[in-house]
Amino acid sequence: MKKVLVCASALISVSIGIAALVSARAQPQDASPIYGVKLPEGYRDWKLISVAQEKGANNDIRAILGNEIALKAFREGIRPFPDGAILARLAWKYESSSRNDAVFPAPQSFVAGEPTNVQISVKDSRRYADTEGWGYGQFEAGVANRIPTVTQSCFACHAKLRSLSPGADFVFTSYSR
Amino acid sequence: MKKVLVCASALISVSIGIAALVSARAQPQDASPIYGVKLPEGYRDWKLISVAQEKGANNDIRAILGNEIALKAFREGIRPFPDGAILARLAWKYESSSRNDAVFPAPQSFVAGEPTNVQISVKDSRRYADTEGWGYGQFEAGVANRIPTVTQSCFACHAKLRSLSPGADFVFTSYSR
Repeated sequence: MKKVLVCASALISVSIGIAALVSARAQPQDASPIYGVKLPEGYRDWKLISVAQEKGANNDIRAILGNEIALKAFREGIRPFPDGAILARLAWKYESSSRNDAVFPAPQSFVAGEPTNVQISVKDSRRYADTEGWGYGQFEAGVANRIPTVTQSCFACHAKLRSLSPGADFVFTSYSR
Repeated sequence: MKKVLVCASALISVSIGIAALVSARAQPQDASPIYGVKLPEGYRDWKLISVAQEKGANNDIRAILGNEIALKAFREGIRPFPDGAILARLAWKYESSSRNDAVFPAPQSFVAGEPTNVQISVKDSRRYADTEGWGYGQFEAGVANRIPTVTQSCFACHAKLRSLSPGADFVFTSYSR
């Protein structure tokens, strides 16, 4: 019985893998698998929503920027976000600055090192109806990450906000004045 | 002899205090003491230069925004900064997010809490010739901090970059792609 279960599990994994690959192949090379999200032109010029820092495996410091539709929704407290809202989460290595620490009374200064990746969230309630209206993509050095499981993990994580923050429309970030 | 020294020291302190107060009185109430720097209109819409985090007494997470003159200088590596360049350093309380940590495998998420203060650096090589071309101001909830020693501490700190980063034009921040 155990063997059968293992086989069934393996078969499901293979099936998911094939489905994901097929889905990935359906998207252009400069877009994310599953969602077909591209890196929006000019996103580095978008306005600041907030900042954050992640320890653990990420060990990064990050900024969340938004296009004008997203910014307006954040500033006016509009939820769910309207279609067309796009968020860009930029992350850099979280690094101690020995130069800055030489200025301060004690080691205390941490700065942004090399960029790690950029994650894009696009609101399109029709196109992404299966994932609560959100499509996702991760980009490294401007190139779409083509590993389907990476892209799948986006919604798996954001979906947990359904119960934790029912009014957040699956977005972790709050606007910082 | 000791008493005389103490008295002399006290006299110097009083003199510095009076000088600072006179200087402070010469500036309008919405501007910083010494430099007369005001909170620039629309600074919250400026583009992102970088992010950082300070432990210690500050215990904040911060974003550095720049006006178009500053941004161009950062992106093109122009130093010293041209006159008219303005930097805005926004800081917020560095806070652990228990909600976000409920999503992750371990506690790791830190976010921006309430704003602490905004510091403005203005490049004007003539007006601020005595401080290497930079004027400073600190603002809390949009109001200029009127304590002269707070404003004096800005250049005292930035001046330490003279030897630590001779090419930085007294600016701690580097541009993050």
